[in-house]
Amino acid sequence: MDVFSSWAQLPTQSVGSLERKIFTGQKGMLVRNEIAPKAVVPLHQHPHEQLIFVAQGQCDVTVGEETRHLTAGSLVLVESNVPHQVVNTEEEVLVALDFFAPIREDFLK
Amino acid sequence: MDVFSSWAQLPTQSVGSLERKIFTGQKGMLVRNEIAPKAVVPLHQHPHEQLIFVAQGQCDVTVGEETRHLTAGSLVLVESNVPHQVVNTEEEVLVALDFFAPIREDFLK
Repeated sequence: MDVFSSWAQLPTQSVGSLERKIFTGQKGMLVRNEIAPKAVVPLHQHPHEQLIFVAQGQCDVTVGEETRHLTAGSLVLVESNVPHQVVNTEEEVLVALDFFAPIREDFLK
Repeated sequence: MDVFSSWAQLPTQSVGSLERKIFTGQKGMLVRNEIAPKAVVPLHQHPHEQLIFVAQGQCDVTVGEETRHLTAGSLVLVESNVPHQVVNTEEEVLVALDFFAPIREDFLK
């Protein structure tokens, strides 16, 4: 694992309507997502705790039973095993940073 | 812990030349730092792993024996107990996001 990096240097993984860059440690993982206009990251869940920072754009985020419309600067806490969904409501790319603890080993395969 | 929040909603802690906002889960903690022009976050270390994302500004970051000049978009991995330092080299505020795992219990006191 490199000590110094940048989003520009990191490779991009294309996963459906999502472009993902990963910067990971051993205990935490930072993921930058670009989500295509009007795209949906469907309801899913995982044991990893996730903090979401909406960096650019607007979206509807569902966590458990609650849905909120979020703008840049918004933050979301997704606790272990809580179902969540992200919908890019706009005609522009949505940029969201995810911070996972523990790391998503499944993203590294 | 709130599921939905935003940087605008969160209180600011002033710690010397640093203004800090904290959004935490149980396993990971996200911290937004505004570091005053030319200010120094002196060499320190902690067992918590830290990922740094330089969101705005420029700085010199030292991790262990290596120092690099970083611009917005840069990423740094500080593994457990590795000494690190951040120097805001510019006449503007530096904005850096830190992701800690485990969480910095000491920041919540």
